[in-house]
Amino acid sequence: MSINYFRSAIENMEGYVPGEQPIGKKFIKLNTNENPYPPSPKVFDAVKARLNESMRLYPDSAMTKVKEKAATIYGVDSGEILVGNGSDDILSILIRTVVGKSDSVALTEPTYSLYKTLAEIQEGRIEKYPLTEGVCIPEEMFSSKAKLVFLARPNAPTGASFALDEVERLARSIKGVLLIDEAYADFADDNCLELYRRCDNIVLSRTLSKSYSLAGIRLGLAIGRPEVITQMTKVKDSYNVNALTGAAAIAALDDVDHMQKNVQIVKRDRAFLKVGLSRMGIESFPSQANFVMTRFAENGKAKSIFSKLREAGFLVRYFHLDYLGECLRITVGKHQEVVAFLDVLDKILHGDRK
Amino acid sequence: MSINYFRSAIENMEGYVPGEQPIGKKFIKLNTNENPYPPSPKVFDAVKARLNESMRLYPDSAMTKVKEKAATIYGVDSGEILVGNGSDDILSILIRTVVGKSDSVALTEPTYSLYKTLAEIQEGRIEKYPLTEGVCIPEEMFSSKAKLVFLARPNAPTGASFALDEVERLARSIKGVLLIDEAYADFADDNCLELYRRCDNIVLSRTLSKSYSLAGIRLGLAIGRPEVITQMTKVKDSYNVNALTGAAAIAALDDVDHMQKNVQIVKRDRAFLKVGLSRMGIESFPSQANFVMTRFAENGKAKSIFSKLREAGFLVRYFHLDYLGECLRITVGKHQEVVAFLDVLDKILHGDRK
Repeated sequence: MSINYFRSAIENMEGYVPGEQPIGKKFIKLNTNENPYPPSPKVFDAVKARLNESMRLYPDSAMTKVKEKAATIYGVDSGEILVGNGSDDILSILIRTVVGKSDSVALTEPTYSLYKTLAEIQEGRIEKYPLTEGVCIPEEMFSSKAKLVFLARPNAPTGASFALDEVERLARSIKGVLLIDEAYADFADDNCLELYRRCDNIVLSRTLSKSYSLAGIRLGLAIGRPEVITQMTKVKDSYNVNALTGAAAIAALDDVDHMQKNVQIVKRDRAFLKVGLSRMGIESFPSQANFVMTRFAENGKAKSIFSKLREAGFLVRYFHLDYLGECLRITVGKHQEVVAFLDVLDKILHGDRK
Repeated sequence: MSINYFRSAIENMEGYVPGEQPIGKKFIKLNTNENPYPPSPKVFDAVKARLNESMRLYPDSAMTKVKEKAATIYGVDSGEILVGNGSDDILSILIRTVVGKSDSVALTEPTYSLYKTLAEIQEGRIEKYPLTEGVCIPEEMFSSKAKLVFLARPNAPTGASFALDEVERLARSIKGVLLIDEAYADFADDNCLELYRRCDNIVLSRTLSKSYSLAGIRLGLAIGRPEVITQMTKVKDSYNVNALTGAAAIAALDDVDHMQKNVQIVKRDRAFLKVGLSRMGIESFPSQANFVMTRFAENGKAKSIFSKLREAGFLVRYFHLDYLGECLRITVGKHQEVVAFLDVLDKILHGDRK
């Protein structure tokens, strides 16, 4: 096209880069925080049962049954739930509901990089608050007048969680909406559901992608006051969630035990991974998520390790972050994968000492 | 919430109202233009084959295989395809790529009402061009300077198609992007694929919801120049299409024969429905889609018929449109459904004449 048809905000942005989903060659995938265990078998049965000629019909636009099931689990009213096509959809719907051109959006640095991308699409003004201390909400953030504040708890890509009383202080001191992204909350010691009930400017987002082992079906949830859900519903695509995903979600949420069992195993192996890294002298952040973030002071070292791991068949995620520098994020895989990973990493770092 | 957290553009808009998807009571559903026939059996096999523990993994963000399959069918390069979560997602992505605050968006009146909703979310200025003649592009539209022009061809909810040479003249005379929404194109005598190749400001949208009988899985496609697709890719959610829908789409697009066979039957029954309506003295628009739009001059008549049809177990869609007035839109169902519908309608209009 010879003429410039596009919004300059879009042309000038880089766009979010998702983690690699390799096609072809087999890797041990420790790069995108997927759960190493399969979802509840009930999910497969539910999808098969839904898979009939009614595929020709539009799904229920509101995903009423998913809402009802989620409301029971989270102890809220179904009018406080919005169902999304993954929690990325929830984040996109919320920012479009709240943030207009030139409105401020606050986020920590680092955090899930999609927040910045979404703010750029909205032509919002981005306020960045560096997490120089790693796990404390930066003091300046408490006086933010942003219309929307993004907080991932546990945070990505570090895995660290913010103290609940600090989060409450944040919710009460800011002027706008506080979106707490709880994508990893099932792997943490606590969550913000109680806090949500006390502070009416909090919106929570949840996903079935991590703890429920269902990244492939795309199901996210927003938990917010009914008046927030009403406005968000105007912005969402009418049929943003398909019929099969709806059926899968109900079955998954109906089998919380299955999820919790997998989460326990992942948490045990998270501790195992951290100890293994520590023994090799590798610094890692405290993690409340299903991954461990490591930091390498030496320039180029993380990148070099990343490449050698890849050659050896292990995919991890490499980050070069402001303030924190070069890091590798390692998803907690199955126990044997963690053992094999630590073994390969040891050889990369120290050579074959046999 | 006591404070006003929302964009006024969102608070002030009504939001798109999707057609009723009844829960519980059984209706003959002639209200949301769903295909009365099931999708290809290959779709069910493909979803079942994909339904395994890899559900725990994220899908391919680009939906590469769907792109490749669609590219073959439409005779374009796979770099000219974007895969969406239904064609509503495609429309939303495109408008967010092209239209900023206060930019103009042109549309005909009537047309698919979602265009207006999407323009409102973007705070675009909406230019409405009344279709007083029904099937001709309004002369004033050719001099529109809008950044984005929406044209549904065949149009909804009238079902009428615009002449191809008029569409070409529109593409060449406007200053912005021409989105031609071809949701119903498989039911029409022709489509805009050839035109797309000649005019580089045309973007086409397609869906599997209607002709492919897959409204339940949410799969839409954009066909546009690679530079358009590149910018749209920045705006779309990374994982906007789930793994099961991807598998279903490939299987459906692999069985074009199945789709075309169903389309032929629907077109035959569309003619049958039109003749039946005409015999009852009911005016209807020429239709190139899988529905027939009827107009009732008498005030309140369409609404009254709508209610009586609903009581008798038939759902159709009622519209009260600027310029066209009160209308009922009837989706073409199975042959026996059309026969039964005409019979009930005749009784409503003329009483039981036995």
